[in-house]
Amino acid sequence: MNAAIIAVGSELLTPTRMDTNSLFLTEKLNALGVEVVQKHIVGDHRERLESAIRYCLDHVELLILTGGLGPTEDDLTRESVSNAAGRALGYDRAIVEALEARFHSLGRKMQEINKRQAYVLEGAEILANPKGTAPGQFLRLASRQIIVLLPGPPGEMKPMVEAEFLPRLQKFLPPIALSTVTFRVTGMGESELDSLIAPTYKLYENPVTTILAKASDLTIHLRAQAPTQAEADALTAELAGKIEAILGQRIYSKHGEPLEQIVLSLLEERGQTIAVAESLTGGLLGSRFSAVPGASKSFVGGFITYTNAQKQTLLHVDPRAIAEFTEVSESVARQMACSAQQLAKSHWAVSLTGYAGPDGGSAENPVGTVYIGIAGPRGLNKAVRYRFPGGDRDRVRAFASQAALGLLRTELLAK
Amino acid sequence: MNAAIIAVGSELLTPTRMDTNSLFLTEKLNALGVEVVQKHIVGDHRERLESAIRYCLDHVELLILTGGLGPTEDDLTRESVSNAAGRALGYDRAIVEALEARFHSLGRKMQEINKRQAYVLEGAEILANPKGTAPGQFLRLASRQIIVLLPGPPGEMKPMVEAEFLPRLQKFLPPIALSTVTFRVTGMGESELDSLIAPTYKLYENPVTTILAKASDLTIHLRAQAPTQAEADALTAELAGKIEAILGQRIYSKHGEPLEQIVLSLLEERGQTIAVAESLTGGLLGSRFSAVPGASKSFVGGFITYTNAQKQTLLHVDPRAIAEFTEVSESVARQMACSAQQLAKSHWAVSLTGYAGPDGGSAENPVGTVYIGIAGPRGLNKAVRYRFPGGDRDRVRAFASQAALGLLRTELLAK
Repeated sequence: MNAAIIAVGSELLTPTRMDTNSLFLTEKLNALGVEVVQKHIVGDHRERLESAIRYCLDHVELLILTGGLGPTEDDLTRESVSNAAGRALGYDRAIVEALEARFHSLGRKMQEINKRQAYVLEGAEILANPKGTAPGQFLRLASRQIIVLLPGPPGEMKPMVEAEFLPRLQKFLPPIALSTVTFRVTGMGESELDSLIAPTYKLYENPVTTILAKASDLTIHLRAQAPTQAEADALTAELAGKIEAILGQRIYSKHGEPLEQIVLSLLEERGQTIAVAESLTGGLLGSRFSAVPGASKSFVGGFITYTNAQKQTLLHVDPRAIAEFTEVSESVARQMACSAQQLAKSHWAVSLTGYAGPDGGSAENPVGTVYIGIAGPRGLNKAVRYRFPGGDRDRVRAFASQAALGLLRTELLAK
Repeated sequence: MNAAIIAVGSELLTPTRMDTNSLFLTEKLNALGVEVVQKHIVGDHRERLESAIRYCLDHVELLILTGGLGPTEDDLTRESVSNAAGRALGYDRAIVEALEARFHSLGRKMQEINKRQAYVLEGAEILANPKGTAPGQFLRLASRQIIVLLPGPPGEMKPMVEAEFLPRLQKFLPPIALSTVTFRVTGMGESELDSLIAPTYKLYENPVTTILAKASDLTIHLRAQAPTQAEADALTAELAGKIEAILGQRIYSKHGEPLEQIVLSLLEERGQTIAVAESLTGGLLGSRFSAVPGASKSFVGGFITYTNAQKQTLLHVDPRAIAEFTEVSESVARQMACSAQQLAKSHWAVSLTGYAGPDGGSAENPVGTVYIGIAGPRGLNKAVRYRFPGGDRDRVRAFASQAALGLLRTELLAK
C-alpha cells in the first residue's frame, strides 16, 4: 500500500514551524510495509486543501491528514474532505456529550464553537482522542481507498495513531513481519561511530541501518522485514551481533531507553540512590532524571546552586577555592558533589559547573568548559574536565548533562 | 505573488529526515511579500515528480524545486521540469568546462556522469553554484510563471538563493514592506483565546493573524504587508492595539520572549531574586530559568526535593503535614516555598508538588493535580491548586512549570 500525508495548517507554511508529525507516521506506516510516497503541506484555505485532497486521491491508496480538526473557523479539514470525497457531514450528539463531560471534569465550560468538532463524515469510524477535544476519523471509500483524519498536536495524534488508527489499518494490509534493534551509544561523535561500523552494516540491504545523532547521543536503528517474525528476527540478530562485537560497552542501551533511565536502572539494581548539585545546568539533569516514571526509587533530588553565594550557603563550597580556582574548577566540582552526597544522604552525587555562554569564561577556560564532579561509595570523589563546542547555550547544557550521565554509568559499571 | 516549494528526494520521505530548506526559502520569500501557499515532498520518482510539478503549475505563480540536481540517475528534477513545462533540455558546454575546472582545482578528475549536470532548460538562466557541482536554473514561462531549480544541500542552496535567485526574482515583484507583531499569552486555552479575539482579527485580512499553542503557552502573530514600511507598521499597530485592549495583562510578552525571561526581567527591575523548590518537576523550572542568558542576576538556584525524605531533610517540611495531608497538599507546597526562600536568602521562592503520573494520585487528587507554592516579600506565602489533564507525564510537568511562571508574574505585577 502507498500513502500520502497532508499536514494542514497555515502555521506550517511559516519560516518557523514545520510538520514533524509525518516523521512519526512514516515510521509507523513503514513498519507495516506501507510506503509514504508524497507529503504535502497546505494552509488553512478551503480551495487549496480540497484540491490537494483530490490530487492525493488520484495518486495513492491511503491518505492521512493531520491538523485542521480544531473548533475554530480556520479548521477546515472535515469540510474539505467532505467536499473532495463526496461524503456528507453528520452531527454526532455522542461526541458533543463526551466533549461536555471532558470540559466539566476539568472544571471548565465547553465553548459553543467546540460543537464544530462533532461533525463526522458519512460512513467514517470515530477515532477516540483521550488527550484532546478533536476526535479523529477513519473512512474507507468505495474505491477501497482509505482517508484518515488526525489531530495536529503530536501529544494527541500519536496515541490516537497507536490505539485507534493502526489497528484499523492493519485489517486491510497483508501480514508482514518486522524486526527492529535499537542501540544507543554515547561518548563519541557521529562520524567516529560511522567509520567504525559502516564497513559492516554496508554489507546488508536488509536490515536497513540508520544512525541518528542528537547532542552527543547516538542511536543506531536496524530494521529488517521478512514474511515471518522468526526470519525477520534472524536478520537483525546477525547484524546486531556484529555491531555489538565492535562497540562493546559503548552501547549503553539495547531497547531504546534514554541514558538517564539506564543510570537509574543501574542504581536500582544496586539499591543505591543519587543526588544532583547543578550550577551550569540549573536543574536540567534533575529534570531528566525525574522525567523517567518511577524515578523516585533512586533519584532523591539535590541542589541548584546557580550563584556562587548558593554554592557557599547550600553546599558549603570553600570561598577560598572559588577565589583561587574560580567556580569552574575541579576543586569546586568535587566539593559540590561531596556536599550534595552528604546533605542528601545519597550513595552518589553528581555536580556540574561550567560556562554555558554566551558570556563568561577565560582564555584557559573558554565558554564550553565544564567540570563534572562525582561522589560515590567508598570515598570516591573526583572531577573531570570537558570542553564542548561553545556558541550555543542550550547545546553546551545538553552535552554537559549527557556527559554527566555517561560518566555516572562508567563509574557504576566499574564499581 | 504566491509560491509552491517542492523538495525532491526519497530520503526526505523516511522517518528520520525532513525538508528544512523550505523554512529558509519561506523566510526569504515572505520578506519580499511572496506567500508560500503549499509545500510538497516527492521522492526520486519520475512520474510522481512530473505530476507534482504539473499540479503546482496549475496553482501558483512561482514554483521552486530543491534537490534532484545531482549527477546520478536518481536526480530527475531537470528532466521532470522539462517534460512538465514543455521546455527542451540543451547541453551547455560552458557548464561542463566550469565543472572540469572545479574538479581540476580540487586535484580530482571529473566523472563522466557529472555531464548530466550540464543540461539546461530552454530559455533558463544559469544560477552559479560556487559551493558545489549542481548549477541552479531560473526559468520564466510564457504564462509569466517562474520555475526555479535549486540544489538540495543547504550549504549550496542558501548562498545561491541570496546571490542568484532573489535578485532575479525581485525584478518581477512590486516593492513591499512587511510588519510583524508577536504577542505571547498564558493562563488560558487556545479556544478561549480565539473566542475572545477572533471577532476582532477576523475583520482584517491584512494583517494576517495566526495563533500557535504549545503546553498552555499561546503565541499570536500579526503580519501585515504594504507598499511602505510606515503603512505596514500602521496596519499591525491598529489591530495590535485592539487585541491589547481585549487581553490586557494576559499578554505577557510583546517581543516573543518566553515567560521565564519575562519573570526574570520583572525580578531584575525590582532588584529581587528567586529560588525554586521542585518536587514534581525535579529541576525543570530551574532549567528553564537557567536557560536564559544572564539568569544569575535574579535566579539563585534552589532545591530539588524529589522524595519525602528530602522534603523533610533539606526543606524541613513537617512530617505531620505529609502524614495528614500527603505531600501533594497546600500545606506542603507552602512550607517548601517558605523554607527555600529562607535557606536561599532570596526575595521569592516557588515550589511545585504534584502527581505527574502514570502512577500515584488519589480519588480526590488524581494524576495531574499540582500545588504551586509561593513565598514572597512582606510575608507572602500561599499555595494554589491546579488540575491539569493527566495521562502524559511530560505534559503535566510542562503545564505545571508554565503555571508556576504565570503565577509568579501575576504576584510580581501585583506587588
